[in-house]
Amino acid sequence: MKAELVSIGDEILIGQIVNTNSVFLATELNKIGVEIVQISSVSDKKEIIINALDEARKRANIIIMTGGLGPTKDDVTKHTLCEYFDDHLVKNEYVLEHIENIFEKYVTTPISDMNRQQAKLPSKATILPNQFGTAAGMWFMDQEQVFISLPGVPYEMEALVKNEVLPKIQQQFVLPALYHKTILTYGLGESVIAERIADWENNLPDSIKLAYLPSLGRVRLRLSGKGTELEIIKKQVNVQIEKVIPLIEDIYFGTDEDQSIEFIIAEKLSRLGKTLSCAESCTGGAIATRLTAHPGASSFFKGSAVTYDVGSKTTLLGVEREMINQYGVVSSPVATAMAIGAQKKYNSDFAIATTGNAGPTRGDLGQEEGTVFIGLATSEGVESFKFNMGNNRTRVIQKTVNQALELLYRKLLK
Amino acid sequence: MKAELVSIGDEILIGQIVNTNSVFLATELNKIGVEIVQISSVSDKKEIIINALDEARKRANIIIMTGGLGPTKDDVTKHTLCEYFDDHLVKNEYVLEHIENIFEKYVTTPISDMNRQQAKLPSKATILPNQFGTAAGMWFMDQEQVFISLPGVPYEMEALVKNEVLPKIQQQFVLPALYHKTILTYGLGESVIAERIADWENNLPDSIKLAYLPSLGRVRLRLSGKGTELEIIKKQVNVQIEKVIPLIEDIYFGTDEDQSIEFIIAEKLSRLGKTLSCAESCTGGAIATRLTAHPGASSFFKGSAVTYDVGSKTTLLGVEREMINQYGVVSSPVATAMAIGAQKKYNSDFAIATTGNAGPTRGDLGQEEGTVFIGLATSEGVESFKFNMGNNRTRVIQKTVNQALELLYRKLLK
Repeated sequence: MKAELVSIGDEILIGQIVNTNSVFLATELNKIGVEIVQISSVSDKKEIIINALDEARKRANIIIMTGGLGPTKDDVTKHTLCEYFDDHLVKNEYVLEHIENIFEKYVTTPISDMNRQQAKLPSKATILPNQFGTAAGMWFMDQEQVFISLPGVPYEMEALVKNEVLPKIQQQFVLPALYHKTILTYGLGESVIAERIADWENNLPDSIKLAYLPSLGRVRLRLSGKGTELEIIKKQVNVQIEKVIPLIEDIYFGTDEDQSIEFIIAEKLSRLGKTLSCAESCTGGAIATRLTAHPGASSFFKGSAVTYDVGSKTTLLGVEREMINQYGVVSSPVATAMAIGAQKKYNSDFAIATTGNAGPTRGDLGQEEGTVFIGLATSEGVESFKFNMGNNRTRVIQKTVNQALELLYRKLLK
Repeated sequence: MKAELVSIGDEILIGQIVNTNSVFLATELNKIGVEIVQISSVSDKKEIIINALDEARKRANIIIMTGGLGPTKDDVTKHTLCEYFDDHLVKNEYVLEHIENIFEKYVTTPISDMNRQQAKLPSKATILPNQFGTAAGMWFMDQEQVFISLPGVPYEMEALVKNEVLPKIQQQFVLPALYHKTILTYGLGESVIAERIADWENNLPDSIKLAYLPSLGRVRLRLSGKGTELEIIKKQVNVQIEKVIPLIEDIYFGTDEDQSIEFIIAEKLSRLGKTLSCAESCTGGAIATRLTAHPGASSFFKGSAVTYDVGSKTTLLGVEREMINQYGVVSSPVATAMAIGAQKKYNSDFAIATTGNAGPTRGDLGQEEGTVFIGLATSEGVESFKFNMGNNRTRVIQKTVNQALELLYRKLLK
């Protein structure tokens, strides 16, 4: 079963908004065994939308449109669908009542004719009620294909998909079973891993697909199995995972169903009842930002002393001025002292420290661009690690964040 | 001049990554007067890519592909382009040397044949050197149309676009002269502003387009003038800006040419020779991360004490325990004391502090979800401000960062 997504509206084409609706739809459809063959963003003009639908129906059984259902003149999806399916608008009493209700309860301005027009919907469409907004979803069957039109507002669309669209698709179509599992590796590049596992990869059954997902110092290998029986596919995927792990044992660091490393760390620390703090120089707070992006961080995270200038490493973390003068601010002793300083000041079990030159110039840091030291303090002592993270500021920072979290994670495994 | 973007790779189709490359490309191309007619994400299969290119060339003069240039088997863009342009691969000595250099400098594993293969490139392509990676960009002219293939890794792609693609497009095609200027406002919503300036907007000349860019507590109004002579357009745009400012004087806070607020702050502080530090609780390091993302931050930024747990507000910033007990950790006195603490500990001229409940629950913070206090310390004293940032964690954090930077900016204007 194949689906195509069509986002309607200029906001995406001028770079104003990120198309997060597609991410949600693709994820949810994949889970129920619907494959996405294409995602397109097009302008909100009738002939352009019709052309996109014509192309989409050549490739997909399920065509899902988002956007263009608002009350204003620039929203043309509903009228376009009338033209496309040779249909006309009729007033839907249920939807009208719902719109009037929303205005009464939540809107301070009075309801206008323009708002009431949203209850006029194509006669051939099955109406999908929009719990959180005034633009109803629409479901058109055209022979064996289905065309679904949804509002572009993310939370309205998401609720409609979960409550209406997915159940209806599962009811309407016979879907394959799908199973994804991801292997996390660190320390080797995509091509080196590919060479190592080439024989295994070439012998994968047709029902299992492998994808390499590299990102800043780590590579995820995603196995996707497809078939008719979920239990059989699961078994097949797991058999292949058992086979490949021995080939990459030194770089293997777990399998997951797409959890981020900070999430895994958070869970582990909370379970152990242990706490963490940071002392960040070159990462400038980016480790703390990652750790606090998820709710519940306060159960294990004490904080981070972002000590960007040299003096603050002394005043906030107690790194000795003499040591900095002797070894330089980007050095192993300073990374170590920063980690110990954070551990003490925050009274935490673990502490990570970063000091490095993120570039773009050598500056007066006395170390080449990309040189980074990471310090890691535990109850057993403190270690430091040296890296060269390359010559792009954003990448140096992000790689250092990933590396620091990975070092901590490996320590927690022990 | 019209462009279409084609993202190649299954990662987007299965919802694993957000297509941020399109946002960057659409924004940059719009700036130089190229209109995006469609954005498509397709699978990395030869026949599918070829079909996408066939469709794109019906609509656009410039077709930009991203992704599928890695060294592994699932990357097929290069081979597909050979087939599409009836071409073959030849070894590019310059690229080979660059790849070998990258491996020598930054990669610990030895270079493999698979990596060297990345230097084999279509003979008909103009090669666009990729400063930050091993996958070169490619530029094919086919009669009046150009096909550009870029790596999918964002920072590699972005540098290639800025250094190679945009200049080449400007050289190759006659583009309209474009001038954008953005008015920054805060404090009112999009629709209220629209009502206020309706008369002015309706009387804008056809050559000037207005876009509302709302985001997290502020609305930017972007005026885009289009014509043949840059100087004339500039004058026209500036005339309109002079006219609209009096209508929104109370919410107007400057014009810029799409510089971020942290960039403007950095420039101002560096010029004044003043320094800044932060004390972050609910923003968890996100202000520091924003400020240190740009090179040169060390000239004004001293650091940030991320004090996520209550105790660290006392040990690191000297906030009195009694005060926290009396007023609660999310309170005006604590925000004020944190700002003063940061100013002292970091010995900085200015200090920003945040304390709030980012949600998703009330927890034991004693304040409703979304309640945030921001403290701002200057040489003249300290102030605090209270906000309600809504009920979505990511949004609360981002809005608080924006708000804090805006408060500082306004203070710097005085």
